[in-house]
Amino acid sequence: MTSKAPHRHPIRLGPGGEFDLIRSFLDPAAASSDLVLVGPGDDCAVIDAAPTALSTDLSVEDVHFRKAWLGPEQIGWRAAASALSDLAAVAAEPVAVLVSLAIREEDVSSGWGTRLMSGVREAAASVGAVLVGGDVSRTPGPAVVDVVAVGRARKPVLRDGARVGDEVWVSGALGAPGAALALLEAGRPLPEALRAPFARPLPRTREALWLSERADLHAMIDLSDGVAGDAAHIAAASGLAIELDVSEIPIAAGVEAAAPDREAQLALALSAGEDYELCVVAGAGVLAPLAAEFRQRFGVALTRVGRARAGEGVWSRDPAGATRRLERGGFSHFAAAQP
Amino acid sequence: MTSKAPHRHPIRLGPGGEFDLIRSFLDPAAASSDLVLVGPGDDCAVIDAAPTALSTDLSVEDVHFRKAWLGPEQIGWRAAASALSDLAAVAAEPVAVLVSLAIREEDVSSGWGTRLMSGVREAAASVGAVLVGGDVSRTPGPAVVDVVAVGRARKPVLRDGARVGDEVWVSGALGAPGAALALLEAGRPLPEALRAPFARPLPRTREALWLSERADLHAMIDLSDGVAGDAAHIAAASGLAIELDVSEIPIAAGVEAAAPDREAQLALALSAGEDYELCVVAGAGVLAPLAAEFRQRFGVALTRVGRARAGEGVWSRDPAGATRRLERGGFSHFAAAQP
Repeated sequence: MTSKAPHRHPIRLGPGGEFDLIRSFLDPAAASSDLVLVGPGDDCAVIDAAPTALSTDLSVEDVHFRKAWLGPEQIGWRAAASALSDLAAVAAEPVAVLVSLAIREEDVSSGWGTRLMSGVREAAASVGAVLVGGDVSRTPGPAVVDVVAVGRARKPVLRDGARVGDEVWVSGALGAPGAALALLEAGRPLPEALRAPFARPLPRTREALWLSERADLHAMIDLSDGVAGDAAHIAAASGLAIELDVSEIPIAAGVEAAAPDREAQLALALSAGEDYELCVVAGAGVLAPLAAEFRQRFGVALTRVGRARAGEGVWSRDPAGATRRLERGGFSHFAAAQP
Repeated sequence: MTSKAPHRHPIRLGPGGEFDLIRSFLDPAAASSDLVLVGPGDDCAVIDAAPTALSTDLSVEDVHFRKAWLGPEQIGWRAAASALSDLAAVAAEPVAVLVSLAIREEDVSSGWGTRLMSGVREAAASVGAVLVGGDVSRTPGPAVVDVVAVGRARKPVLRDGARVGDEVWVSGALGAPGAALALLEAGRPLPEALRAPFARPLPRTREALWLSERADLHAMIDLSDGVAGDAAHIAAASGLAIELDVSEIPIAAGVEAAAPDREAQLALALSAGEDYELCVVAGAGVLAPLAAEFRQRFGVALTRVGRARAGEGVWSRDPAGATRRLERGGFSHFAAAQP
């Protein structure tokens, strides 16, 4: 299925300022992939990577990012990393991205848009994906970046396979992007430890594929809204409750700069979001034997943080055994239900 | 490849106003397809339709549409039809769409966004595609809709295969959406003949597949920027010139309401765009035998409008044989090249 030669035709669009801009968005080194049969410059890209996982991630200026806080390359990287993280969440290999960009005239002429796109391409390249298409429009309003991530999901791990008695694990440590955001919003400086997790989050692509090849993963999700909110999706999809041991939640280095006490740190780790770590559910005893090699190979921890039980929703459990239902604390774009 | 049963899990997202909104976007009848292995509600959609054609189409409020001129269902239909037209342009069968929507709070609470999404779903359903995912965000600015169209391209028809001596054909008749826009911008009423082409353009999916099954198509593009600009892409990609017989360009009914003389009508037909008709290039004599059946089957004409010759660019040719180079007249988002 993947042995066809890629269709490598040079980008020959017709004349026009819009097409000059599109040309500036594309990789001068013309990155390609054997799975990409038709790259940028035609009506469609064509890829050969079935079963094909698809996810879109929308970033809006002054909602998801502020130009005062991040350079355009970082904004592009984050937008792409967020979409690529969705591929990791189903254990798909990244293949391609498409990017739609609505942008003000002045952000074109300053080169901001072209720099943003170089950040997108760099994030994609970091996990083996290439830019194969997209769209561009002027806008009179905030910049909007929509990244479409396309991968191959030979054996997708979904949200609905968790079973009562399973263990819940997370990769890495949580709360750093939330702490960075809290500091920036308060006009305070970022400690070094918070800068990279905020400006350059790493999709856990290799980690997810490595785990899915070695263990029967029952469910997985990436942590974009905070583990409390994201675990609630697994709980809802699988028809059970998830209980998180609050004393086991791994707190990222640097979080203390924004949250001095453990309670405040936990709130960031549970609810602030944008961690892009994995939350993985597997049978009891399945992941523990892999944790040491995982840490050695990827340089981040794999930590058991809870369990699935009968019931519904997400619950915290303190070391004394007291449980409390966690309200969804992740960022919600729309608090009220629409008609 | 297509015999697997679709993975039909109910949409069980966690709680939250944002997820209520997403639920309202989805089809209550849960349209599905054998090619959709995982539909909405997980980190990714998963489809099994290789080779997979992908295209995105971005619509920005007050750039691509105005709320005063179209209802939300029509805006959603148009946004989806434009992306689906890109699938037709490579002779791909539509399978799925994903939609990213940036929307103001008040457009959520009024139900405008939910109505827009019903228009997207309706356009997708009209050519056999289902909504499988997307993203939603609030925005402080204009509404932005990005539609990702996903299809199966068993034998994609690209832009780069035209050869010197080939004929250039178009489906349908041109200029109606451009005429409608001109009237609306002048505050004048729309005649009935212009309403549907403007508010409810039809992607030429079946037409493109039918032609590609019956003839060796060398190149194809859909007319989104006007045939002068779009033919320039085929000319550039194929490394030749295209000559259009201006007396053969089919003008749509109703265009005379905005453009009283033939010259002004031609300008709309050549350059106004958003026709979403097909421009097809094939060897001499290949398409003529199919034109009568095409018209009978699809209710629209298939008209020879020009030829490919050595050279570059797009040229008009009048009945006396005089030729003139056409400047790209389609809408350009960015007139000037960026740095």
